[in-house]
Amino acid sequence: MPGYSQYAIVKSVMETKIDTITDGTVTTPHGFHAGATAAGIKQGSDGKLDLGILFSQEPCVVAGLFTTNRIKSAPVVLCRERLERGRAIAVVVNSGCANASTGEQGLADATEMAALTAKAIGVEPENVLVASTGVIGQRLPMDRIKDGLNHISLSDDGGHELARAMMTTDTVPKETAVAVSAEGLRFTIGGVVKGSGMIHPNMATLLCFLTTDAAVEPDFLQQALHRSADISFNMVSIDNDTSPSDTLLLLANGMAGNPAISPGSQPAELFQRALDRVCIHLAKAVARDGEGATKLLEVTVNGAVSKTDAVLAARTIVSSPLWKTAVYGRDPNWGRVVAALGRSGAEVEEARLDLCIGDILVLKGGTPQPYDEPGVVHVLEKEEVPVTLELNLGTGSATAWGCDLTEKYVIINSQYTT
Amino acid sequence: MPGYSQYAIVKSVMETKIDTITDGTVTTPHGFHAGATAAGIKQGSDGKLDLGILFSQEPCVVAGLFTTNRIKSAPVVLCRERLERGRAIAVVVNSGCANASTGEQGLADATEMAALTAKAIGVEPENVLVASTGVIGQRLPMDRIKDGLNHISLSDDGGHELARAMMTTDTVPKETAVAVSAEGLRFTIGGVVKGSGMIHPNMATLLCFLTTDAAVEPDFLQQALHRSADISFNMVSIDNDTSPSDTLLLLANGMAGNPAISPGSQPAELFQRALDRVCIHLAKAVARDGEGATKLLEVTVNGAVSKTDAVLAARTIVSSPLWKTAVYGRDPNWGRVVAALGRSGAEVEEARLDLCIGDILVLKGGTPQPYDEPGVVHVLEKEEVPVTLELNLGTGSATAWGCDLTEKYVIINSQYTT
Repeated sequence: MPGYSQYAIVKSVMETKIDTITDGTVTTPHGFHAGATAAGIKQGSDGKLDLGILFSQEPCVVAGLFTTNRIKSAPVVLCRERLERGRAIAVVVNSGCANASTGEQGLADATEMAALTAKAIGVEPENVLVASTGVIGQRLPMDRIKDGLNHISLSDDGGHELARAMMTTDTVPKETAVAVSAEGLRFTIGGVVKGSGMIHPNMATLLCFLTTDAAVEPDFLQQALHRSADISFNMVSIDNDTSPSDTLLLLANGMAGNPAISPGSQPAELFQRALDRVCIHLAKAVARDGEGATKLLEVTVNGAVSKTDAVLAARTIVSSPLWKTAVYGRDPNWGRVVAALGRSGAEVEEARLDLCIGDILVLKGGTPQPYDEPGVVHVLEKEEVPVTLELNLGTGSATAWGCDLTEKYVIINSQYTT
Repeated sequence: MPGYSQYAIVKSVMETKIDTITDGTVTTPHGFHAGATAAGIKQGSDGKLDLGILFSQEPCVVAGLFTTNRIKSAPVVLCRERLERGRAIAVVVNSGCANASTGEQGLADATEMAALTAKAIGVEPENVLVASTGVIGQRLPMDRIKDGLNHISLSDDGGHELARAMMTTDTVPKETAVAVSAEGLRFTIGGVVKGSGMIHPNMATLLCFLTTDAAVEPDFLQQALHRSADISFNMVSIDNDTSPSDTLLLLANGMAGNPAISPGSQPAELFQRALDRVCIHLAKAVARDGEGATKLLEVTVNGAVSKTDAVLAARTIVSSPLWKTAVYGRDPNWGRVVAALGRSGAEVEEARLDLCIGDILVLKGGTPQPYDEPGVVHVLEKEEVPVTLELNLGTGSATAWGCDLTEKYVIINSQYTT
């Protein structure tokens, strides 16, 4: 029986493959096109892309997750309504203006933006979803949007342009795609995401568009997106400030020709794993490119009494301004990790607590250990700084990602609208 | 009857007075002495005061509130134990080392620090309380403390020295006192507090020592302290990071000679008002002197469905890094206030929301109003920046205080231990 078991694992590894595609993006899956233009929505943007369209040749099943902020942007209100139908063909997105806190006029503007897009690409308005990111409390410049939409040409490598058109304070476009192959099943998942401030997603995130050419049953698509978001975007924090615009959309156009993936099946498990990988890749890219960031912070909490507690602890520590500034300054001030854990609300017994900075044990059973201080400084000097806490209370585990806090975050955000 | 009512009010105003005492401090109330020395506990402190004693000529009734962080410093553990007796004569405090995350050795060190103090001033060790603030995860330098305690001379204006000895990244000592007089009743309340990072108190705060020469019943003393803390220290946030060392002590030595103040009485109401004033004064001083701060932020939320909701909203907004950086940059980006409100968890109906920056209405019923932008910038340029939100849902109100977020916060905290 052990032999059989081993054979089964080897067989499984040989038959199913998830490969990252070089230069993959949201238009890598079959049948998705995109394009963007510089419509002049971003203030002083000097011709930067700020308006884009994502389009599918075939109608898509759509899953979505949105901000839990009680103040919701007009595009979020519109998308939530339209998602009840569960179908879409296109998404229009702009940066430079969030169309949030804009009252009834804002909703009218978002609806018109969808209608103008529908007209430009020749589809029904109800099949167009809308996303906007940028300054809150200002109206969309509708004339520039109308004009800009007529200058967008769609292409099957237009995802790269779309990724740039979504950027606000992001310094790099963030995109990826994976190819999945198994016996009798081949499909692709791609995505683009933008950060990089007001990032503390909760049940959704930032703006992120994911696509797949797999055929997927609608309920499973929503369920899979939820699960992936919980271990990726919902585990990222830049600055604790959840945005009113967070929008995560997953469009599945079925052009891979597979039988629709249903829950509990082997293809479903494979789809979930591939989607997890895409989402974690993009979530970490957001953390790494947080406003003013120089480093990616990773906090893993093991041995919590529950998964919920582990999530709470990991998210709280990765959000602590004092740990974030310590890492920035390569300051081995690990007491700040312990302090943040203690205020997280997670069950903690100080006398059971172990803490490693990188691989270096600094606290064991709540007692400080003599440790290699230059070694810890060396860990803090790297581009990715991992911290692991063992609570030794149960089996709950979670990993969260964030970034260091630098003077540049302050400079970026003290001069955002003016 | 209206005439009688009015007379009663006038009478009340004439008979009871709460006056702020110029240069008042924790030793202003009768019978309290203090002193401090530079014991060399602070790293590279160049002779700065870092060890102090607060002493009462008569034994005191004591009330205390401590951090809700699950990781508690050794002094907090010791104080909580000793407060069960409800009596104390002295408090010893050091800055430069928090004696937190120091395991069993830390508790032994805190106990010894109390014993050494008791010996130096000639009282029983159980009557001495201990507080420490500074770096987490390092042992107290007991030899320096032992030596330092022998160099402290106590005096009745030693409160000023004590205020300085508690400082870590604080730029100014924070102290106050008020004199209360009513028919047949005269007493004084004084206090000192230190900030100025890892400040997000919850049911307690930072290090703060309050004294009064009033005689006060023990249960009422604790109850009054709790109430005052809830509207003062618990409404302050510098950086969301609740410390493991938060300690708020109130010592009442009864030397004013009044009959012990009991709950529900007129003196009790007067005591509460005076204590509220002292606590709010000190809490605002902490916010104003937050690490790297240039401004005091004040956020008032009215019309919430409950007091709890109002507190949640006010605290969340005053803690928002994006609003804090906007104020620093004099950027009238009021959408960030709305976004923080929306994520606070408080009940919000966007269509009922009004927002004023200073006195200038920028949002009415959820719709942006044309407003005087240079006027808002002028509000943001002042040293105190008030914001008022009307949720128009109920009668819950709360005010919270914080500070702007500047490059200097990052610089201070990226170079704290090294």
